[in-house]
Amino acid sequence: MKLGKPRGTRDFLPDEMKIRREIMDRIRAIFELHGFEEMDTPALELWEVLATKGGEEVERQIYKFQDKGGRWLGLRFDLTVPLARVVSNTPDLPKPFKRYCISKVWRYEEPQSGRFREFVQADIDVVGSARIEADMECLSTAVDALRELGLDDFEVKINNRKILEGMVEVLGIENRIAEGIFHALDRLEKVGEGEVARAIRALGVEEEKVSRLLDFTRFKGEEAITYVENELRPSSKAVEGINELKRMVELSKAFGLEGTMVVDFSLVRGLDYYTGPVFEVKTKSKGIGSIAGGGRYDHLIEKFGGISTPATGISLGVERLYEVLSEEMKVHAAPATKVFVACIGEENLPQAVAFCRELIKSRIPSETDLMGRKLGRQLEYANSKGIPFVLIVGPEEVKTGVFKLREMGRKIEHTVRLEDVPALVTRLEGSSQQPASQEGN
Amino acid sequence: MKLGKPRGTRDFLPDEMKIRREIMDRIRAIFELHGFEEMDTPALELWEVLATKGGEEVERQIYKFQDKGGRWLGLRFDLTVPLARVVSNTPDLPKPFKRYCISKVWRYEEPQSGRFREFVQADIDVVGSARIEADMECLSTAVDALRELGLDDFEVKINNRKILEGMVEVLGIENRIAEGIFHALDRLEKVGEGEVARAIRALGVEEEKVSRLLDFTRFKGEEAITYVENELRPSSKAVEGINELKRMVELSKAFGLEGTMVVDFSLVRGLDYYTGPVFEVKTKSKGIGSIAGGGRYDHLIEKFGGISTPATGISLGVERLYEVLSEEMKVHAAPATKVFVACIGEENLPQAVAFCRELIKSRIPSETDLMGRKLGRQLEYANSKGIPFVLIVGPEEVKTGVFKLREMGRKIEHTVRLEDVPALVTRLEGSSQQPASQEGN
Repeated sequence: MKLGKPRGTRDFLPDEMKIRREIMDRIRAIFELHGFEEMDTPALELWEVLATKGGEEVERQIYKFQDKGGRWLGLRFDLTVPLARVVSNTPDLPKPFKRYCISKVWRYEEPQSGRFREFVQADIDVVGSARIEADMECLSTAVDALRELGLDDFEVKINNRKILEGMVEVLGIENRIAEGIFHALDRLEKVGEGEVARAIRALGVEEEKVSRLLDFTRFKGEEAITYVENELRPSSKAVEGINELKRMVELSKAFGLEGTMVVDFSLVRGLDYYTGPVFEVKTKSKGIGSIAGGGRYDHLIEKFGGISTPATGISLGVERLYEVLSEEMKVHAAPATKVFVACIGEENLPQAVAFCRELIKSRIPSETDLMGRKLGRQLEYANSKGIPFVLIVGPEEVKTGVFKLREMGRKIEHTVRLEDVPALVTRLEGSSQQPASQEGN
Repeated sequence: MKLGKPRGTRDFLPDEMKIRREIMDRIRAIFELHGFEEMDTPALELWEVLATKGGEEVERQIYKFQDKGGRWLGLRFDLTVPLARVVSNTPDLPKPFKRYCISKVWRYEEPQSGRFREFVQADIDVVGSARIEADMECLSTAVDALRELGLDDFEVKINNRKILEGMVEVLGIENRIAEGIFHALDRLEKVGEGEVARAIRALGVEEEKVSRLLDFTRFKGEEAITYVENELRPSSKAVEGINELKRMVELSKAFGLEGTMVVDFSLVRGLDYYTGPVFEVKTKSKGIGSIAGGGRYDHLIEKFGGISTPATGISLGVERLYEVLSEEMKVHAAPATKVFVACIGEENLPQAVAFCRELIKSRIPSETDLMGRKLGRQLEYANSKGIPFVLIVGPEEVKTGVFKLREMGRKIEHTVRLEDVPALVTRLEGSSQQPASQEGN
């Protein structure tokens, strides 16, 4: 009777974790290069903080429970809602507040390829700026982070919730079913026009309006903007959204996103809190597809009782990145340990331990035997772990202070004094970097 | 109606998070220098994995709830139980398996100074070795990590569960109340002898045995070992424990813990899964007190259905470290951003953004204005954030390609071409490191 783990969650053994750590570290480096600063919030939030913020579908997916004091709590389903709560409670934060957070969130969804119940998001947000530059800064940072991971060939889908609201307004559709329509449109790529039309009809929208809604989604790029400008002229809200969209395209070159922006009026993004630009980053490289998404949420912060504060952000899906990059990044999963200090004879163990500590003090990652094994087994262990050097400590070595340092890859032994080991290891490591691949090391 | 966060949880704004990140990074570096490798497991575990593993008191503190499928889950209360589950399900891991994990755990306790319901542990474990070297390696690595954080003056309290069990055996006390006695002893330092005696009496232990139990706790160091060797000779289990204890003292010099080991027979460590050596690290520096604790748990892994596997480990309390070190580490909380690219005139914004991106490409952390502010407000922002350099981009600069780089601290302006900014910033940064404190920068 082996005990497992909850469905949709995963363990990451060291070889896997090294790759995840590298992905997260590279993303973090780019976030910090762009001036974003890290903030952390609890995994647990009060239920009333999470409730109604993301919309009905997300709300159903929240892990919700009572603590032992009877208080209703939930596990956060994203990193944006907790950020909004903090900003609302900390009105004196200097603006713009550029924060990042790379951390776990939880959703009770049906697990499937690349979708888990516990997963990591890498989230950046700019709080306090109502300007399109803030949205573009998020997009540009996200794309730079993806470039840092070796991805290219980006397509940045953009839309604007104000345009979506304008469509509903101009068509004279009741406001209360707007969110339902948006959710239906959001599924267009996945389920196709027929299914979307059926879903919108089911909300009580007349046939003619259904087909006009679908018309909006048929145009892409420049053409789409012209079409919408003509159709939605009566809605000042829509006009605002169109101007924001145009400004995004205008700034795309300065922000390093030239030629990537694609207008798509079926892009909604699932969460209910978006109010303006919404966006999604796709890349064709390595067959990834959609890898980041976000948008502007100018009214979320005031919902927590804070003053009205514009904000925008984007999240990168770390799980998807891990899934796609883990194979080629396996080369990076070498052990940190450089030297295994092997010990011949139980009586020399204290010396071996002390020598190992000397290497560690010189910042050479080192291990010694912790299992009282014979030399042969110790060498096998070092070999199986891919540790590149073995320092052998026996009675002779303890007496003379002269050691053998074995290069495991090239099967060469060097004679060396203990104090010279760090320099030798550093030198050999450096020289083995280049020719290693030729030697099949 | 502001919305807060659950009691006993905290938000960490960037200035605080930078310090936490640095504490965790330094600990991580030492763990890796000692050859420990990172592993990650879910925050959520099946209830049957968590239940009964830590003992009754801990079990009451677990956040326990049903998921939407009716499955009972819990938030992990430590990092050892999940590790044991993984090892049990992965029998082919090379041994010793040296893993570290620096991550959050949850306990529903009454929050008080330094104790929270969501907190970070920095945990290392050696799995697969029954030898004392493994316990010593954990202790030595933990102490090295604390040294890396500038702490010294360590006291390592040690005891052994086999000795505690031997006491109960020799005194002829029933086994079923042993855990109760251990829990009472564990509180000795906190509540004093009178309270402990009362608690043990309440378990039905006769007066004479109560006072003999307390006698064991009165001796410390060498003397304690001699006393216990005489008293517990009839228990082979106790003798085993005493020999392990002596071996720890014997190896203390090799493991860099000379003169720190103090035998204390009232040391129990709260968790029920310990089977051999238990230990606790204290430091007098900065008034910290107990800061790390752990022990051997040779029977935990088989409880998950795996093969019997010896294991030992220790956890550092990151919250306590943060509490004590945050004040002096504030100097490290400078912003990552080196250059603020200020923009004069809306029409120059695209140029300012593009220049900022050039600096970022040269790996100089840089920001530009995202709020359409006047120059004066932009400089105020850079100043308030402590950003050391401002590059000014106006119509003249865009035309000539020659810029002013303002050193905010020394209020000096340098004239520079864009391509020379990264080198200049690096040079100025380097030269300002030493004299900064003299200049009151």
